[in-house]
Amino acid sequence: MSSEAWLDEIKWTSDGLVPVVAQDAGDGKILMVAWMNREALKLTVLGGKAVYWSRSRKKLWRKGEESGHQQIVREVRLDCDNDVVMLQVEQLGGIACHTGRRSCFYQRLEDSCWVNVEPVLKDPASIYGNG
Amino acid sequence: MSSEAWLDEIKWTSDGLVPVVAQDAGDGKILMVAWMNREALKLTVLGGKAVYWSRSRKKLWRKGEESGHQQIVREVRLDCDNDVVMLQVEQLGGIACHTGRRSCFYQRLEDSCWVNVEPVLKDPASIYGNG
Repeated sequence: MSSEAWLDEIKWTSDGLVPVVAQDAGDGKILMVAWMNREALKLTVLGGKAVYWSRSRKKLWRKGEESGHQQIVREVRLDCDNDVVMLQVEQLGGIACHTGRRSCFYQRLEDSCWVNVEPVLKDPASIYGNG
Repeated sequence: MSSEAWLDEIKWTSDGLVPVVAQDAGDGKILMVAWMNREALKLTVLGGKAVYWSRSRKKLWRKGEESGHQQIVREVRLDCDNDVVMLQVEQLGGIACHTGRRSCFYQRLEDSCWVNVEPVLKDPASIYGNG
């Protein structure tokens, strides 16, 4: 088996992407869902830090490059359909979301409204150095 | 605000879908990732049980309809980009995966190989009554 056969087993979308769920390896909090292409996943596994594919910027997104909020990868999993990846990560800085919250899933449905239920731990302006 | 405004806030794909992560509300185990269209999400919230959209069968997929492994929805969340939904669920039968495993994410990357690391709790043939 070639060293990249594991990448061939993934069912990539027609755009060459796979959705990736990042979960905190410590307490199981779901931090974010983003996308990877083949190169991003390969770099993630080789380097041990999460590298995503930014669909909006159409380029590799080395998570935490600006913010310092890197994700140290403890485990990589694949689902039964081979079309979703899950990472167990150590979230540096304890903040995964660009809004300064721990998790991107901070909106909870309450009586037909999305309500922000997670605190902003750090002002994004100070995270990204443009404040 | 109309009663469906919360659905309008979601950024659906060009196919009218949104990816959904289902997490066990008890211990935080990530059970599966599937897709919903607008109707599926509406039915999920109205009925309190997860209803997905099957992309392969191109129809609503009332999770657990055959297997009995329904997902009772405790919480619905949305991420910062409004394009991923997360459910906190109670997994009936303790099995989310059609392979008879608790979670669909049972393949772990080990030395460039995907290795099955979660036990089959129930024979799929007995789950789906065709054994």
